[in-house]
Amino acid sequence: ARKHRIAVVPGDGIGKETTPEGLRVLDAAARRFGFELELTHYDWSCETYAKTGKMMPDDGLDQLRQSDAVFLGAVGWPGVPDNVSLWGLLIPMRRDFDQYISLRPCRLMPGVRSPLANRTPAEIDFVVVRENTEGEYSSSGGRMFRGTEREFVTQESVFTRTGCDRVMKYAFELAMKRPRKKLTSATKSNGITFTMPYWDERFAEMAKAYPEISTDQFHIDILCAHFVQHPDWFDVVVASNLFGDILSDLGPAVAGSIGIAPSANINPERKHPSMFEPVHGSAPDIAGKGVANPIAQIWSGALMLEHLGEHEAAAAVTDAIESLLSEGGPRTRDLGGNAGTLEVGKALAEVV
Amino acid sequence: ARKHRIAVVPGDGIGKETTPEGLRVLDAAARRFGFELELTHYDWSCETYAKTGKMMPDDGLDQLRQSDAVFLGAVGWPGVPDNVSLWGLLIPMRRDFDQYISLRPCRLMPGVRSPLANRTPAEIDFVVVRENTEGEYSSSGGRMFRGTEREFVTQESVFTRTGCDRVMKYAFELAMKRPRKKLTSATKSNGITFTMPYWDERFAEMAKAYPEISTDQFHIDILCAHFVQHPDWFDVVVASNLFGDILSDLGPAVAGSIGIAPSANINPERKHPSMFEPVHGSAPDIAGKGVANPIAQIWSGALMLEHLGEHEAAAAVTDAIESLLSEGGPRTRDLGGNAGTLEVGKALAEVV
Ligand SMILES: CC(C)[C@H](C(=O)O)[C@@H](O)C(=O)O
Ligand SMILES: CC(C)[C@H](C(=O)O)[C@@H](O)C(=O)O
Repeated sequence: ARKHRIAVVPGDGIGKETTPEGLRVLDAAARRFGFELELTHYDWSCETYAKTGKMMPDDGLDQLRQSDAVFLGAVGWPGVPDNVSLWGLLIPMRRDFDQYISLRPCRLMPGVRSPLANRTPAEIDFVVVRENTEGEYSSSGGRMFRGTEREFVTQESVFTRTGCDRVMKYAFELAMKRPRKKLTSATKSNGITFTMPYWDERFAEMAKAYPEISTDQFHIDILCAHFVQHPDWFDVVVASNLFGDILSDLGPAVAGSIGIAPSANINPERKHPSMFEPVHGSAPDIAGKGVANPIAQIWSGALMLEHLGEHEAAAAVTDAIESLLSEGGPRTRDLGGNAGTLEVGKALAEVV
Repeated sequence: ARKHRIAVVPGDGIGKETTPEGLRVLDAAARRFGFELELTHYDWSCETYAKTGKMMPDDGLDQLRQSDAVFLGAVGWPGVPDNVSLWGLLIPMRRDFDQYISLRPCRLMPGVRSPLANRTPAEIDFVVVRENTEGEYSSSGGRMFRGTEREFVTQESVFTRTGCDRVMKYAFELAMKRPRKKLTSATKSNGITFTMPYWDERFAEMAKAYPEISTDQFHIDILCAHFVQHPDWFDVVVASNLFGDILSDLGPAVAGSIGIAPSANINPERKHPSMFEPVHGSAPDIAGKGVANPIAQIWSGALMLEHLGEHEAAAAVTDAIESLLSEGGPRTRDLGGNAGTLEVGKALAEVV
């Protein structure tokens, strides 16, 4: 049987509750579609940090490198600064494994209520393709005149040709596979006048190779407004690291699915493992209570199956989510129900 | 009588149609409340650029400097690149006149439909205070290895202590004047790790001086989501140049008022003139047809009156807008009516 090696990193908070349900559904899919998942568990988290002073061992990334994919829960906990937790576990994976694509589907699922008035599932169904390694999230910057009135800080955004071209190419290819064949670029070249005009330039260049794709571009400010006013305009949206971060929270928000939104951090060349994680965080307020919604985690699992080439299994998982939501299956509090994490996971594992 | 010197710059497109209506209402307010507006008209625009190669004369800013305020329509026209039009007229004013506050009220007006389901006017009523001179809109950056595979561009975000402190102070003072006394800071210190942690640091420092204000902060990604899901959470929101730009388009979008949203670019010390302009642009698609909605311009006029100390007159103008909208007065297409620009302007001038 086909075998995929999966590194499982539940991480913090509700990640510890949602990953087991993700695995439950993945396991059901594996049995049904005849492949094998070889799991290795890593308990790296903010607790590891409390014990060892590190989020993961020094050779942590090397350990993960052996796997085909990483299945991640959530990273972060009150009291541990983000520059320790996120930058000690999440961001190093994205960077070191050159997961330069962050993929975040934004779909209004049947049976889920959008905060927007009168929107139907067919009207909200787009994907944000986010650059995931450079841009505004740079490691170049600093502070001068500390502690004085003259104090200032700087941070340099860096856009390379390689970085722009590869994320754009991925987005164009993805748009080619979708029926609407439409790609929108997020820019801000009217205000951010060194980097964003270059982004536009590379987008225009890449567009030449894809005459079948209809393209447009909007400045990020009005694009955010359009997400609210005209979500039906969008099919695939390509964006820099920061703009993609914003759009891929706003997109799920307009789709009423911030609690169920999945994400994939992909190295398309498969030189390194890709990583799959929910968009939500560790949710300290509800952690440990068994009430977290596992759907984002399970849906992220579907994206992982897709990446591993298990297309049928991936479709079965998203179909299962869709039926559960539309047919009034058990749902957690955030969706107006009173089911627990386990119950939802089991229900999905059964129908997958 | 009190006299205020106003520089009027209609600019491009619908700016030429909305400023006269703005002036009509301001004039009515001046007569009713007993002050005088001394107007000087400047026809600087993309047409000026076409004729002279410049958006305004070399001493343009000096000419404007004589006035107490600038009343601007819109800047920009197809065929003229943004770095010519915006950076030749709009941005120089913000920078040279040190208009370091951009103020953008986001209100669901009675009689206006929000794209959000089931929201009432009382639930959407907040103000975005945007830093308007530094941050992500910097003039420091460049390109290397042009035309090769190694090509890259950089742009440096710059946050000074002066820049952060003064916009935050303004925001805290504004929050003090509002009944809810609440201030939210937009950050992204978990991803943008040099500049945004500094922003947070200054915010925490400033908060100490305002114990009456309840504060919170959100990363810009989830903050955008909250604008859609919980607009009622917000009272005053303070943000950097880019984040403020995004939030002040998204805010009006959730309030259904992107076509009527006003903005003020303020130099609080009054060392230089402040500038008042609609959030919308020059709208080439409807320009010249007399159908543009003048409310954003007129509302911007109210912000100008407020700044000039004409508080009663300012309130009269916003009240007039509110009644017109809620009582089914004439409305333009964008609000579902079929009135023209002139008709709406006249209706407001009559009741002010
Ligand atoms: C035109 C553009 C440079 C400007 C900005 O981003 O500041 C506009 O979007 C605004 O918000 O006034
Ligand atoms: C936690 C944070 C650094 C991260 C990001 O901004 O990339 C998160 O918001 C995300 O989108 O995965």
